[in-house]
Amino acid sequence: MPATSKRSQVDPFIVMDVMEAAARAEKAGRHIIHMEVGQPGTPAPEGALKALSAALSQPLGYTVALGIPALREGIAALYHRWYGVDLDPARVVVTTGSSGAFILSFSALFDAGDRVAMGYPGYPSYRQILRAMSLEPVGILTRPEDRYQPRPEDLPDGCRGLILASPGNPSGTVLRPDEMAALKTAADAKGMALISDEIYHGLSYADRCHSALEVTDDVFVINSFSKYFSMTGWRVGWMVVPDEQVRTVERLAQNFFICPPHASQVAALGALSSVDEADANLAVYAENRRLMLEGLPKAGFDRIAPPEGAFYIYADVSHLTDNSLEFAAEILEQAGVAVTPGLDFDPERGAQTLRFSYARSTEDIAEGLRRLTEYMSRR
Amino acid sequence: MPATSKRSQVDPFIVMDVMEAAARAEKAGRHIIHMEVGQPGTPAPEGALKALSAALSQPLGYTVALGIPALREGIAALYHRWYGVDLDPARVVVTTGSSGAFILSFSALFDAGDRVAMGYPGYPSYRQILRAMSLEPVGILTRPEDRYQPRPEDLPDGCRGLILASPGNPSGTVLRPDEMAALKTAADAKGMALISDEIYHGLSYADRCHSALEVTDDVFVINSFSKYFSMTGWRVGWMVVPDEQVRTVERLAQNFFICPPHASQVAALGALSSVDEADANLAVYAENRRLMLEGLPKAGFDRIAPPEGAFYIYADVSHLTDNSLEFAAEILEQAGVAVTPGLDFDPERGAQTLRFSYARSTEDIAEGLRRLTEYMSRR
Repeated sequence: MPATSKRSQVDPFIVMDVMEAAARAEKAGRHIIHMEVGQPGTPAPEGALKALSAALSQPLGYTVALGIPALREGIAALYHRWYGVDLDPARVVVTTGSSGAFILSFSALFDAGDRVAMGYPGYPSYRQILRAMSLEPVGILTRPEDRYQPRPEDLPDGCRGLILASPGNPSGTVLRPDEMAALKTAADAKGMALISDEIYHGLSYADRCHSALEVTDDVFVINSFSKYFSMTGWRVGWMVVPDEQVRTVERLAQNFFICPPHASQVAALGALSSVDEADANLAVYAENRRLMLEGLPKAGFDRIAPPEGAFYIYADVSHLTDNSLEFAAEILEQAGVAVTPGLDFDPERGAQTLRFSYARSTEDIAEGLRRLTEYMSRR
Repeated sequence: MPATSKRSQVDPFIVMDVMEAAARAEKAGRHIIHMEVGQPGTPAPEGALKALSAALSQPLGYTVALGIPALREGIAALYHRWYGVDLDPARVVVTTGSSGAFILSFSALFDAGDRVAMGYPGYPSYRQILRAMSLEPVGILTRPEDRYQPRPEDLPDGCRGLILASPGNPSGTVLRPDEMAALKTAADAKGMALISDEIYHGLSYADRCHSALEVTDDVFVINSFSKYFSMTGWRVGWMVVPDEQVRTVERLAQNFFICPPHASQVAALGALSSVDEADANLAVYAENRRLMLEGLPKAGFDRIAPPEGAFYIYADVSHLTDNSLEFAAEILEQAGVAVTPGLDFDPERGAQTLRFSYARSTEDIAEGLRRLTEYMSRR
């Protein structure tokens, strides 16, 4: 067998290694507080489970590639409810998680060797998927004073695309409509296609989040049922694409995926009528966030971006370490709290940052903060 | 927004267009017999549904990227039961359908511009996924007298990979172990990585199917719960990869997919204990096949490959047409039977072939044959 390809030489997901270390510690009898994982601890909404249970007696064969029509309509209706945007359901593409949406959008827009820009820190799989598709990720080093979001004048030359994320992961920071519009104008001027990752929409704590669709139709918007609807493992997400790209994306989806998982689509359709339950989860995150914003600075983690959405806090720990991998391992070992080293999100500066997730129960968050405070006081 | 990429310009799945035409006819009040679709009409096995129902009260979050350990062990045990092969579960990678396995294997093995060989006729998405990943499909024109499987001396120069399929789609023909071994030797001599698509294993009507793993460990074997276990829409498949490739595939899977759908993995694990039900479906296909082999030649479709497995019959119709698209449309219109034009499977010679599927109920098959016979007699 010939060697593996060059494109396959992507970095591992560091958070996965942290999760494994935490699991090993638990197996050895220790109690660990999980501030590393980017997923809710809650199940799918009741409406999702009911819809699926009712459907199980039918054969769940392939659906059409773009997804169950009623689900596409339900998603389009969200855009009216959340943003006041009238959206043609024909532009909604149901995907196998937001992961599937990245594969489809990158394939639709970019050819081998193309360069694609994104802010650092950012979701690590952007750059790994790009590499594995023979594309070149170009990091924009964002600043804490810009809430870790790129400025229009930061956009690099010679790139075919720009990925924005609002709320950002790991920062939790949100782009305002005027910022989004300015970035779109700058991207257009440089001939860059715009991809807007909105997977944490619904999870915001002051103003509502704004979709790129409020600013332009000339964008690939990516979202998912994973976070707000608490359905990570179900792998069902969606894209909104420009009219003229629907047929291209459909052909790619037919061949790459055949269809998103049918059972998960049925559950997602049910979830759309369980907004109360999703909002109850949001209230828990809001309380967790309040505790974190109070407790982390007291513990010594006081250089943090304003976490306006999602369920993460990104902390500059340059005054505490220049090896976030070691520091995270030490916190796990000494304090029994799993946190994620920033290197996952920023290959250039992440040795001096940590990400804290507050997606679990409020009891866990309170206990985690107690442990962090106690550990930092004796460090 | 810049134009779509060159790599996104893949062909549509013609069978999808046939399915839509059939659906339109049904909407207009006609009764259509479906011999176009490549999926069972039966639901997932009872064991699958029971396992999922029992799991629904738990949060179904992300699983590890390579899949639930018990499922990987259960799949490894199949290799002992079906082929007498002892397989380390660590080499089993659960995937999002066989589709996910193609994306992972092509990414692990090939770089942009690489050429990858496969027999024509063959599964159309091989070549479309390759193109969408900036790889170049190279078709090997197989012969009816070779049961539409490539000969070792047919392998082209300058290719980095070879995709084999046994039972083949659309041919249903099966590779014997000595043929597989000779093809492996020839591929090695040319520096081609071997990918063996075994998605129709379990569906054979004379000898059992042989896995490439009986011949070599130096192969990517791809399979799925879609066909034998009747779980198409669930999107859960698997790969067996060489030891030294597991970590590479794991990193790709973490980034491309995070994990296969959790609910589908739970259902698949349950399906492994429902072999009786799968075998009952097989008995239906066997009877359907008997009817087809008797009825199709009587209707005038007598130039067919010996369909030793899967649920397809591939017919040379060069004495009847040189436009299979038109002929299929005519059969749908005149006889009320949906069949697939060969152009999906063989872009070079498929204008003179048709694929008939016999995956549905025996009543449907009998009625379809009656209609085909009647139509051909008056054509």
